[in-house]
Amino acid sequence: MLTKPTLLLDVNKCKANIKKMAEKARLNNIVFRPHFKTHQSHEISQWFRDEGVNKITVSSVEMASYFAQKDWEDITIAFPVNILEIEKINELAASIRLNILVESVEIIEMLAKKLLSEVNVFIKINIGNNRAGIEPQNTDLIFQVAAKIDETQNLNFKGFLGHAGNSYACRGKQEIAKVHQESIKKMVHLKKFFIEQYPNLILSIGDTPTCTTMNDFSMVDEFRPGVFVFHDSMQLQIGSCSFDEIAVAMACPVVAIHKDKNEILIYGGSVHFASDRLIDQNGTIIFGKVVENIGRGWGNIVEHVYIKKLSQEHGIIKATPEFIENVYVGDIIKIIPIHACTTANLHDSYVTLKNEKIDRFRF
Amino acid sequence: MLTKPTLLLDVNKCKANIKKMAEKARLNNIVFRPHFKTHQSHEISQWFRDEGVNKITVSSVEMASYFAQKDWEDITIAFPVNILEIEKINELAASIRLNILVESVEIIEMLAKKLLSEVNVFIKINIGNNRAGIEPQNTDLIFQVAAKIDETQNLNFKGFLGHAGNSYACRGKQEIAKVHQESIKKMVHLKKFFIEQYPNLILSIGDTPTCTTMNDFSMVDEFRPGVFVFHDSMQLQIGSCSFDEIAVAMACPVVAIHKDKNEILIYGGSVHFASDRLIDQNGTIIFGKVVENIGRGWGNIVEHVYIKKLSQEHGIIKATPEFIENVYVGDIIKIIPIHACTTANLHDSYVTLKNEKIDRFRF
Repeated sequence: MLTKPTLLLDVNKCKANIKKMAEKARLNNIVFRPHFKTHQSHEISQWFRDEGVNKITVSSVEMASYFAQKDWEDITIAFPVNILEIEKINELAASIRLNILVESVEIIEMLAKKLLSEVNVFIKINIGNNRAGIEPQNTDLIFQVAAKIDETQNLNFKGFLGHAGNSYACRGKQEIAKVHQESIKKMVHLKKFFIEQYPNLILSIGDTPTCTTMNDFSMVDEFRPGVFVFHDSMQLQIGSCSFDEIAVAMACPVVAIHKDKNEILIYGGSVHFASDRLIDQNGTIIFGKVVENIGRGWGNIVEHVYIKKLSQEHGIIKATPEFIENVYVGDIIKIIPIHACTTANLHDSYVTLKNEKIDRFRF
Repeated sequence: MLTKPTLLLDVNKCKANIKKMAEKARLNNIVFRPHFKTHQSHEISQWFRDEGVNKITVSSVEMASYFAQKDWEDITIAFPVNILEIEKINELAASIRLNILVESVEIIEMLAKKLLSEVNVFIKINIGNNRAGIEPQNTDLIFQVAAKIDETQNLNFKGFLGHAGNSYACRGKQEIAKVHQESIKKMVHLKKFFIEQYPNLILSIGDTPTCTTMNDFSMVDEFRPGVFVFHDSMQLQIGSCSFDEIAVAMACPVVAIHKDKNEILIYGGSVHFASDRLIDQNGTIIFGKVVENIGRGWGNIVEHVYIKKLSQEHGIIKATPEFIENVYVGDIIKIIPIHACTTANLHDSYVTLKNEKIDRFRF
């Protein structure tokens, strides 16, 4: 029985999400290198193996070490090298095929001094997200970095890696298509520019909105989506998924009911949901969308019923009079989180609709 | 050596914060019942014992169980009873002095059926935070609830508990004083109303802004502040603390530098900081304030240098040209978090300025 805030996982939906993405990679004849930062679970990682996946993406050295211990032997750390963790990087490089990201000559000079085994190196390109990477038009710098990689022992230049995270600002397929075309164009341009000198270079991209909604990935060599494995309210708003593809929901106990304010107080706060928010078409700030509580799973979204505020352990649900009429203290309310990655990050397990526990590693 | 995002703790500042609050309670001749949700650490809890504290506040049944195992014998769960956890509540009630919160007749009827040992019961009053509790003017309902407690075995009516969390919207002492006066007035009014029938009832209040800045608490019987133990950027903005009283900072590795944009990319994202934000006097959204990196600790705030964006593992620091000139990949940047409670919640330890590790329990 659920007694406290619990992260529910619909295994069938999750496996279907994995299968669909694996098929898209096969159709495009590209490598599917899923990002494991979303689920961080050994058990869920096995469902990817069932679809033939043997190359993965993670976002930290620690996460790479965890999955390397679980027999994943080809791992990309999709985060600029943190040279302070060189000891662990060396351990990993000695035991698995490790792929790392660089974006300056300086970091390569540091690696040259400290790296003890061979690693593959991607140059990180800023294809629109404006977070990390070299600007694609800065081919002089890209040439310098590639040349520096070339002349450095233990570094193999592998290609260009980008993340079109700007697709998160899109609403609907048309806007996502525009981001996709622009980011692919930047990457392909670079490939053409460098392919003569580096005939084996590959292109790696990988945000969930473009990977879920677009079909043509024939111009790149691999993709690395992550949150598609669960989806969430944010992906639904962007247009990356249908409601039926969302595989996670929070289950939270009702602890008080304020009918005068149409508010329900739940045990479930920012330490269970994280503080991600979305703004709906009416300008309302929403911290989670309430769904019908059906059996061990959940039904449709309940319109106009949502988390309006979160504090550390409390959540305040704004309800309609019709909804509140049938809710009692001691009930469970189910809620689709805004951002599955940050919500999952706060839990050390998932509970399936068969009431089985799936462990999750907390870093 | 620090190699990844680490939560630093200045033990001296933390102990001074505890001492100051304990002294204020002594001067007012009231009970100091600190909220342990901020630190969630056995070792830090001992520093409270050194100041004579033997009654504490927590925000969940789990947290109560943790501290009960650490020999805390008088615990208030400052959260409306979650009846789904009645089994653990019964375990606790059998072994320690447990104080719980109710705000309806219904929950007492549920407790009447299921509670096996004696507990003290506070009626939760909404003194301005508009999150939980009965409106103070609704004396009819308060009477009903108190009467129901009275007639129920194992329930001892203890008094009224409020949390003026609306003080978080204050800026400066004058505004905090107004919230303090209003909330005290509401509580005292209730006490006068009920004292004849319940001569032993007590009043409990406890938000950090009023507890740190106000001096007169003689009209209440106990206070329960929490975040004062560390303080943070939010408390500094409210006016609850001086900069020198902030006892925690994050240390994050620099992984890339973008001089063209005056941005520094750090290893340190929403899974290390949480996503709390504050808006400064210029309307800028800030996810953390950069401070001088001095030895194992930190110096003053560096003006105009702050975290402008967080994703899962990445933080983007907006810097000045002068600051960025002296920063290199592999450096550590230190940052005062926005909200110490949610930041600490993401870590399983603190590192002191003597490089010692202090464990923290993650629920």
